[in-house]
Amino acid sequence: MNMVLTLRILGAMLLFLAAALLVPIPFSLYFRDGAAGAFLLSASITLIAGLALFASCKSRKDLSVREGFAIVTFGWTFYALFGALPFLFSGAIPSPLDAVFETMSGFTTTGSTILTDIEILPESVLLWRALTHWLGGMGIIVLSLAILPMLGVGGMQLFKAEVPGPTADRLKPRIQDTAKLLWGVYVLLTAAETVLLMFGGMNFYEALCHSFATLATGGFSTRNASVGAFNSPYIEWVIILFMILAGVNFSLHYHALRGRVRGYFRNEEFRTYLVLVLTATGLIVLLNQGRVYDSFLDNLRYSAFQASSILTTTGFGTADFEIWPVLAQYLLVLLMFTGGCAGSTGGGMKVARILLLFKHAQVQLYRLIHPRAVRLVKLGDIPVDREVMQAILGFFALFMGVFVVASCLLAASGMDLVSSGAAVIATLSNIGPGLGSVGPADNFAQVPAFGKTVLIACMLMGRLELFTVLVLFFPSFWRK
Amino acid sequence: MNMVLTLRILGAMLLFLAAALLVPIPFSLYFRDGAAGAFLLSASITLIAGLALFASCKSRKDLSVREGFAIVTFGWTFYALFGALPFLFSGAIPSPLDAVFETMSGFTTTGSTILTDIEILPESVLLWRALTHWLGGMGIIVLSLAILPMLGVGGMQLFKAEVPGPTADRLKPRIQDTAKLLWGVYVLLTAAETVLLMFGGMNFYEALCHSFATLATGGFSTRNASVGAFNSPYIEWVIILFMILAGVNFSLHYHALRGRVRGYFRNEEFRTYLVLVLTATGLIVLLNQGRVYDSFLDNLRYSAFQASSILTTTGFGTADFEIWPVLAQYLLVLLMFTGGCAGSTGGGMKVARILLLFKHAQVQLYRLIHPRAVRLVKLGDIPVDREVMQAILGFFALFMGVFVVASCLLAASGMDLVSSGAAVIATLSNIGPGLGSVGPADNFAQVPAFGKTVLIACMLMGRLELFTVLVLFFPSFWRK
Repeated sequence: MNMVLTLRILGAMLLFLAAALLVPIPFSLYFRDGAAGAFLLSASITLIAGLALFASCKSRKDLSVREGFAIVTFGWTFYALFGALPFLFSGAIPSPLDAVFETMSGFTTTGSTILTDIEILPESVLLWRALTHWLGGMGIIVLSLAILPMLGVGGMQLFKAEVPGPTADRLKPRIQDTAKLLWGVYVLLTAAETVLLMFGGMNFYEALCHSFATLATGGFSTRNASVGAFNSPYIEWVIILFMILAGVNFSLHYHALRGRVRGYFRNEEFRTYLVLVLTATGLIVLLNQGRVYDSFLDNLRYSAFQASSILTTTGFGTADFEIWPVLAQYLLVLLMFTGGCAGSTGGGMKVARILLLFKHAQVQLYRLIHPRAVRLVKLGDIPVDREVMQAILGFFALFMGVFVVASCLLAASGMDLVSSGAAVIATLSNIGPGLGSVGPADNFAQVPAFGKTVLIACMLMGRLELFTVLVLFFPSFWRK
Repeated sequence: MNMVLTLRILGAMLLFLAAALLVPIPFSLYFRDGAAGAFLLSASITLIAGLALFASCKSRKDLSVREGFAIVTFGWTFYALFGALPFLFSGAIPSPLDAVFETMSGFTTTGSTILTDIEILPESVLLWRALTHWLGGMGIIVLSLAILPMLGVGGMQLFKAEVPGPTADRLKPRIQDTAKLLWGVYVLLTAAETVLLMFGGMNFYEALCHSFATLATGGFSTRNASVGAFNSPYIEWVIILFMILAGVNFSLHYHALRGRVRGYFRNEEFRTYLVLVLTATGLIVLLNQGRVYDSFLDNLRYSAFQASSILTTTGFGTADFEIWPVLAQYLLVLLMFTGGCAGSTGGGMKVARILLLFKHAQVQLYRLIHPRAVRLVKLGDIPVDREVMQAILGFFALFMGVFVVASCLLAASGMDLVSSGAAVIATLSNIGPGLGSVGPADNFAQVPAFGKTVLIACMLMGRLELFTVLVLFFPSFWRK
């Protein structure tokens, strides 16, 4: 481990965070919400810390695999810590643990909140909350790669550690160029949604906040009743569309913007993802029709919204799905484990992993009947490498292991069984709301301090897809 | 598929079932419970069906892989259907679906019951109920192998299809000899437990029934309050000991009986299993002490009993664990997924599979740090074949897939979320009692007919470890 180099890069990342902390200031001045000073103070502290790390740690060595993991894990942790400062300084969230919870939930695009009344907060603080989603959505490392030339060498290590999914798409030979293109697509889609939401009657500030949260599959809203507060079918359908887009591999969007729209349907993961969205919505509509909703159009809108929101791990709400029939709730729980496509901003286990897992099981069954036949697991037309299947098995085992240990710890802190499990999956899959006492009509405020700490760790592990974080707990990681 | 040969072997298996159906008759005559006629009728019908199949289907070909799967799956199904006859004819269970549920639960050593009052049933019927456990525990195919010389050729196919676990131990080169030795050990342990239980004051009939259910990790008792009804610490400790023994690979018992007792501790799966039993008991004791039980000895006994009963998938009860602290219940749920050792009579995913899964995850993490290092997953000192890991991945995916689909179907039939999931895991892991409306103080009587059918399928799939049953649903299985 080259600690000096690691700290230097972390310093550079903090400098960028300091710049980001200045963004809410004009909003604060416009709304006269009195939080500008808090942001200035937070930015200054972050700037000083960043400069200190950046200037004092000089190293000319290249990045190795290990530094990659350390930088990404600590980078995200630093962001959650320094990013929490405005919540504290503005008085919006007095408890440091709660502020870190909210910030980690923001950057990891989880969207779980400890706030009971969102609307009393200063506008600029809510903007910052949404901005953390947006920065974390495409990835703070991907962003650093795009803007920090010092990461030129070894950037691939970082990219892989932050975007470890089962499929890797490089749009350009240089990883920096790929990062720039991905961020370009991301900015473009965010701008498009903002404009469309403003057509629906939202002001610029609210449209921006909701676009940040949608494209990042985050879920923080500016309203207590989430998107439901606007009571506008148009707005809900716009957000449904962009949630679904945010759950797609951004490489496909890039190709589509360059005219290759058919690329979507040539991609097997995308097709599966679309089938999942449509099937889940269809089933839930059937279950709700006549029981929860009488109007078919309302039913379709509510069902499609909740299904897309959960599957893409966004976590926006327009309906309290805990009053839905049990099977409809259960379908949502299953979507929680699935998540978006690899290479999207969505969390969860990812559609590609689940798809490969079942294809693998199918091949295993096939081989029992035809022991001598050679049949490979394929994604699209491409055979999947054995190493990839091994990694998926490892991921699956770790995901279940972390789920089990974390929900044990929550149950130990006194929460009931369903809420413990739901809180862990809601944070580990970076969704936001769970079931039971952390359901869509509730929040995470009443979770005991110990439980909040566990959930903060779950959010981080979920966003970085486990390996990157867990590898740091290996003794041999730290040995020479 | 050689259908003729398949039917002939199924016929032979029915002949053996007809003989087994005669066993309860002396008990019926002794207790004068009036059910002897029902058994005689059931035995006759089974005999005729068996003879018809056996005599009319002659074939000289050898068994292939496919016939192996078909014989095992249909053999178990036939046993559940014909074995249900005494319940119907004696009037003990009037509904045919319920009778098949109870019999499948018996043969698969699940122990879930649809009976609300067990004690009003004729003694011989309760003995038959326990006997189905015992026959299914070591395996009806293993038994057929031991006694049917016609299975000499191709018996390994059948053995593998019924005992598909991740580790295969052949005690002798000839599979028939292995089957005989395993049944020998099984009979010996059953006899030992029967004698020990009689020392505790049980009569021969009750001692025998409980020994059948213990060694098979079944769970059917002759009392409504299960083992708790005897109110005897001695009896409970004897049953704890034999439950733990029944969850161990029977090959180890065979070696121990031949003097190699240290073989237990040289076996990594056994060590892990022991650590699981002891850790779970220890934690539950800690959680219950002072809250549920005041006396430490009572606490230890109740906690050890429930932990061993669930881990080994027996399902006997001495305490209603639904009044225990949430975390203690959660630990039991985790044990439900684990199950006994491979090669034991216990169900579940098996300790070896879980162990290998986590070892695999560890190796995956290690390789991230040392990409060029070669490190294999080992069980004991023996490297585990890649094919075995691939099969475990397939098994894990199928287990989760079946769990998800089946619990969706139960939720669709109107059960609540926790009960649906618990009913499926209780049957798929062949445990018996679940949580919620199918908890240890309740039974499966109120599950809707559709749900019962789903659970019958779960019991069968769980006992035969999925692949053997699911492979029959492949269209190419039936093609030439």
